[in-house]
Amino acid sequence: MAKYAVSDLDRTFSALADPTRRAVLVRLKNKPGLSVSELARPFSLKLPGMTKHLDVLSDAGLITRTKTGRTVAVNLSAAPMREAIAWLNRYERFWTVSLDRLAVLVEEDGEQ
Amino acid sequence: MAKYAVSDLDRTFSALADPTRRAVLVRLKNKPGLSVSELARPFSLKLPGMTKHLDVLSDAGLITRTKTGRTVAVNLSAAPMREAIAWLNRYERFWTVSLDRLAVLVEEDGEQ
Repeated sequence: MAKYAVSDLDRTFSALADPTRRAVLVRLKNKPGLSVSELARPFSLKLPGMTKHLDVLSDAGLITRTKTGRTVAVNLSAAPMREAIAWLNRYERFWTVSLDRLAVLVEEDGEQ
Repeated sequence: MAKYAVSDLDRTFSALADPTRRAVLVRLKNKPGLSVSELARPFSLKLPGMTKHLDVLSDAGLITRTKTGRTVAVNLSAAPMREAIAWLNRYERFWTVSLDRLAVLVEEDGEQ
């Protein structure tokens, strides 16, 4: 019997399964060090709502938060995302081959 | 204000956030067309438990199920996984650069 605990990969994929959280990562990539209120603004989210999303991203290790005085600067963190990419890329060959095969089948079908 | 509906990407990452479901995808990559009971066996899962996981993978478009008589053959499906890979790869440059920079810092630190 295969047994699993909640893994880093579970937390990473779970954190990525929300459009607001993915959009936060995209914004942080372009503008590192944004504050929580700057991150909340485009979503019309109140601070507690954004803080909850940041908690999920932080638990997954995808961001770091650094407090200076009363401001929290948020930055991306690299390692967990790389683990997720590595997991998916192991299967990329399958997905690529499948789509190539599909393209060949469609072409063959068109020639008949 | 940015508004989002539940997207394909949400469903894909959410489906990937479970170790049993990831293991099912790995097994199907190596052995396409396994039946539901063959998939359930290594996890000591009952059929309804495995069926629930397969429902999630199927809703995310990651697998197809084909019924022949009383047997259901399960196969991988490529497109949604490719979308997830594409999303992550857009950020790969950031993660790679960050880790390279970290390696340089560690090296510099070791030289002092």
